[in-house]
Amino acid sequence: MKKYVIIVAGGSGSRMNSDVPKQFMLIEGKPVLMHTITRFTAAFPEITVILVLAKQLNDEWATLCKKHDFKIPHQLTDGGETRYHSVKNGLELVPDAVVVGIHDAARPLVSDATIKNTFAAAEERGNATPSVLISDSLRYVKGVENTAVDRNHYHIVQTPQCFHSDLIKKAFLKAYKPEFTDDASVLEAFGEKINLVEGNRENIKITTTMDLVIAEVLVKLI
Amino acid sequence: MKKYVIIVAGGSGSRMNSDVPKQFMLIEGKPVLMHTITRFTAAFPEITVILVLAKQLNDEWATLCKKHDFKIPHQLTDGGETRYHSVKNGLELVPDAVVVGIHDAARPLVSDATIKNTFAAAEERGNATPSVLISDSLRYVKGVENTAVDRNHYHIVQTPQCFHSDLIKKAFLKAYKPEFTDDASVLEAFGEKINLVEGNRENIKITTTMDLVIAEVLVKLI
Repeated sequence: MKKYVIIVAGGSGSRMNSDVPKQFMLIEGKPVLMHTITRFTAAFPEITVILVLAKQLNDEWATLCKKHDFKIPHQLTDGGETRYHSVKNGLELVPDAVVVGIHDAARPLVSDATIKNTFAAAEERGNATPSVLISDSLRYVKGVENTAVDRNHYHIVQTPQCFHSDLIKKAFLKAYKPEFTDDASVLEAFGEKINLVEGNRENIKITTTMDLVIAEVLVKLI
Repeated sequence: MKKYVIIVAGGSGSRMNSDVPKQFMLIEGKPVLMHTITRFTAAFPEITVILVLAKQLNDEWATLCKKHDFKIPHQLTDGGETRYHSVKNGLELVPDAVVVGIHDAARPLVSDATIKNTFAAAEERGNATPSVLISDSLRYVKGVENTAVDRNHYHIVQTPQCFHSDLIKKAFLKAYKPEFTDDASVLEAFGEKINLVEGNRENIKITTTMDLVIAEVLVKLI
């Protein structure tokens, strides 16, 4: 099946208290977003890349592409009010009967194996989401109460979350719910079972300045 | 109240496929375990340090202390069959009516604030455990089934887990259960409510070679 990837960079970086949105911050001198896109075109040279970007960042992105001589072809569409709405905008550019991966722009450290395994599993089974085990103890917190839970039952979910495009597009026709923190949840609410595949631990989401410093090191390992 | 810390280094490093146990691996040229001990004596110069170490590593530790001119006084006791048994051995050296922190040797990046806040909360409330929020989506996995869960209800638990010594020693008189992945769980099984305080995100447990590489960078930040 033909492959598409939607790179979701709808946000504008307020969580890092920085003027530079996180997807434009530099790792090894190159914007995070360029690392991220390159992971997918390296894994699948024929993949179609759709970039969902906050509208007010379009000019800055164009300038960065020129400056870094970044020539990987990609379609651009506008970010929405929430991540859900950004993904929905991206899905409008995806045809039926392809496999589409939906990936956080702020995850530049996804490995070649994670990308290939997740797309392959989704092609075969309709959907696939990479995940990794938790190595720390966990507690369930509700109000002022909290209790130990068995960490072996919990997986940390990563991206790219991959789907048959027909399926995920239908799921996104449902009304938005704030519980939708990722795309697998949207498909699950539509009644489908989610297939987990193994992700790579380096595939962290860059949310804080500390993550950026970590990413600068990890990029040399993958 | 007088302060004690039990540094738990019972393991012998098999998870890293390395001949060097993880607590002896180097960060900035110094064994992880020396970083860890120094965090506590820097926070509380009068603290009593108890090191629980696998018996077969005693000679190597003595050699390392000499080589690195490491002179922080500490009592040494043997590791047990599991983490639970190692902690129990350490607790035998702790008197009643003190506050005792129980800390993973492989967490050299605990901050001064985390140590001070956790000991202070435990002194006031009987127990305290540092924790941080999860920034990724989570799924609950049971057999082949899995479902999305609300990550806002889950906290990742760190160490030092701190206690009135009378209380935790009584809790450790209970029989061992494999569910005890940390010391707060032991106290909870004894019927006490656990108090969570804010940890620091850098306070990772070094389990893999990747963690060690990350730690080498983070140690410069805290």
